[in-house]
Amino acid sequence: MIEYRNLRIALLGAGSVGAQVADQILNHGDELAARIGAGIELVGVAVRDLKGKRDAVIPANLLTTDAEKLVRKADIVVELMGGIEPARTLVLAAINAGADIVTANKALLAHHGPEIFAAAAQVGAQVYYEAAVGGAIPIIRPLRESLAGDRVTRILGIVNGTTNFILDRIDTMGESMEDSLATAQQLGYAESDPTADVEGFDAAQKVSILASLAFHTHVPVDSVYREGITSVTREQIQAARKAGYVVKLLAICERVVGANGVEGVSARVYPAMVPLDHPLAAVHGANNAVFVQAEAAGSLMFYGAGAGGLETSSAVLGDLVSAARRHVVGGPGLAESTHATFPILPISEIRTRYHISLEVTDASGVLADIAASFAAHGVSVESVEQKVLGTNGEAPTATLVVGTHEATEADLAATVTALAASPVVERVVSVLRVEGL
Amino acid sequence: MIEYRNLRIALLGAGSVGAQVADQILNHGDELAARIGAGIELVGVAVRDLKGKRDAVIPANLLTTDAEKLVRKADIVVELMGGIEPARTLVLAAINAGADIVTANKALLAHHGPEIFAAAAQVGAQVYYEAAVGGAIPIIRPLRESLAGDRVTRILGIVNGTTNFILDRIDTMGESMEDSLATAQQLGYAESDPTADVEGFDAAQKVSILASLAFHTHVPVDSVYREGITSVTREQIQAARKAGYVVKLLAICERVVGANGVEGVSARVYPAMVPLDHPLAAVHGANNAVFVQAEAAGSLMFYGAGAGGLETSSAVLGDLVSAARRHVVGGPGLAESTHATFPILPISEIRTRYHISLEVTDASGVLADIAASFAAHGVSVESVEQKVLGTNGEAPTATLVVGTHEATEADLAATVTALAASPVVERVVSVLRVEGL
Repeated sequence: MIEYRNLRIALLGAGSVGAQVADQILNHGDELAARIGAGIELVGVAVRDLKGKRDAVIPANLLTTDAEKLVRKADIVVELMGGIEPARTLVLAAINAGADIVTANKALLAHHGPEIFAAAAQVGAQVYYEAAVGGAIPIIRPLRESLAGDRVTRILGIVNGTTNFILDRIDTMGESMEDSLATAQQLGYAESDPTADVEGFDAAQKVSILASLAFHTHVPVDSVYREGITSVTREQIQAARKAGYVVKLLAICERVVGANGVEGVSARVYPAMVPLDHPLAAVHGANNAVFVQAEAAGSLMFYGAGAGGLETSSAVLGDLVSAARRHVVGGPGLAESTHATFPILPISEIRTRYHISLEVTDASGVLADIAASFAAHGVSVESVEQKVLGTNGEAPTATLVVGTHEATEADLAATVTALAASPVVERVVSVLRVEGL
Repeated sequence: MIEYRNLRIALLGAGSVGAQVADQILNHGDELAARIGAGIELVGVAVRDLKGKRDAVIPANLLTTDAEKLVRKADIVVELMGGIEPARTLVLAAINAGADIVTANKALLAHHGPEIFAAAAQVGAQVYYEAAVGGAIPIIRPLRESLAGDRVTRILGIVNGTTNFILDRIDTMGESMEDSLATAQQLGYAESDPTADVEGFDAAQKVSILASLAFHTHVPVDSVYREGITSVTREQIQAARKAGYVVKLLAICERVVGANGVEGVSARVYPAMVPLDHPLAAVHGANNAVFVQAEAAGSLMFYGAGAGGLETSSAVLGDLVSAARRHVVGGPGLAESTHATFPILPISEIRTRYHISLEVTDASGVLADIAASFAAHGVSVESVEQKVLGTNGEAPTATLVVGTHEATEADLAATVTALAASPVVERVVSVLRVEGL
């Protein structure tokens, strides 16, 4: 048996995840060593402020504000600072100094993944990032490895716990969007500035990472179509439930044939109606789940806690064990795979189903007018439900809910524009996509 | 860029999974090669009968009945014959000839895992077996790698599609056990001799594999406590649903403190009542799901198709890509980890909850007698429901359903023996464990 020196681990950041990771290395290092086949040693923890409050008791002599120096004396750098700079500069410096990287930084990977993977490939370093998507849920490794011999066709993910918590509360407790967001903030599920979550930026970063892996094609985060949940109303959610659906913020990526007949990749984030009997409909609270469809494997789902310091540390430590084992014995580990280079399709070419809710004049001939608007733009109607509402000034009004067959976003958008301009339509109340059918 | 020769793949078995794997290698070898970083070549397919019927068109010159010779000229041997011999001999021969192994053979691993892993460790060969548990569902790799830095505390798995199909049909369609089994056989979900599935042998092999991985402790299949579903009745399933539960055949393994105060591992298979709001309750038909609880990650669930040639081929090909990448560049891959060596606890020391259904004489004082029987054996009663049934000859009878708090199997068994002998008990109708609370 060959004896190895201890592997030197450097930690960047000691927030809620970092503190848990430090605690495990310091207090359960023997167990990790047994699984790695070599000892590990925490050589330093880079923090912004040496006197900051933190969850775990990290010995003072391990703390440093000189992250640049720290990354140069480590075999494995665990980056848990978040944000793009200085994380990017430090990760690149660590790679060029010969370290392997474990990171939970979705923003860094979504915006600078290719640069980091290229630097790593150049020197034979590895980049592990299981914690960047879905918190504790193993999804990166299954996509990278377990499904490496299959072809993924579609991923529907609930990858943002904050928005799932908010939408679930509106659905199950009848709260308004404002109250539900306030509750999420009180309970620590939402930040005081919730923009990154509620506007779908966080989910867009994650779907960029998932799509790149699943389709062996770099999918830039800027190419992800994005709508947040701020325009979703309690009324939409309640109407959806009556119709047999639940509204979820979905991160979707799929292989589809575009308008020009060429196969491409679509990546998008928006609130959508999901049928109540779909496995994703049962994902409550701040949980995450990723539903994967592949040609051979069929439908798979990965479910669990999408955030939390302790939960996310599980994914980080799993990566640390993988990185350490590889660092000891050498070998391939995981490289970025972009051999497929599919084109990225714009949202306008994507086909899905819609529920459109309209407030209309309640007079004879109105339904025929509306139906003509859909037909004129090539959108096929699947169902119509009409409900008399009352009167708007003199004219009586009604609500029409129109369910469509699959149509492209472009055709649907043209239909909605025509409807909004129609003299018989008082108001386009709501347009929601339907996914998971 | 270094150029490598093609990797030589040998396939043992050309049944439903093998035919799909052959088809993918023969017809999508370029795509696999791009993901591996080297070309692959199918050098032969060992079959029992050269003229046997098979799903994929495998060129006649690749077929051979001389498996012993074939395994000696391969870099990677994909063993899909099933059963213990000649699979064991061939796998050992392949390892000793320098090949890595990909196998879907749960029986082989459950019964001869340590021998095979030891042989592989001796020569630095790898053994991949994602397809042995849960068909297409990635569960082995997440346990081996993603959770390698965490501590798994419990696994509840629906790992046998046949029995889940049967129990689900009884539950949702009100069929009898006999009719449901017959339907499963007609549809190809159950074999003409269904013993391995319905008596829990298949699930026991799988839980032996999962427990060994999860707890870093060899858990022999013979140490798995096992009860099948043949004694489960439609009446039990209907009563369970009324009480808010669904009956599932669960494969369970967990870390528990035994009677002597020492922490050990329990592995067991039995039908149990699962609360309707548990994620496992929503696993219908022949699907599988594995619910994992870990100290840091919390609760995770992995869901998908548990069987099927095409589905299982996804797991096999994922392993093939991993094995091939490692074969090209060398390196660690995955070793068996048994550093923890927990003791295996007998079923008698396991604590769970129970629902016991009794037919009793409907007379005053009966409930007190029954309650005394539970108390005398240290089993604490949580709920009692009584229903007058009618008369048995002269005496009126009633049904009592007693729900217990957690109790050991030994105490519960002693209670049931005492109840059966009690003059006020006409019949112990049903004893079911409750899991997932």
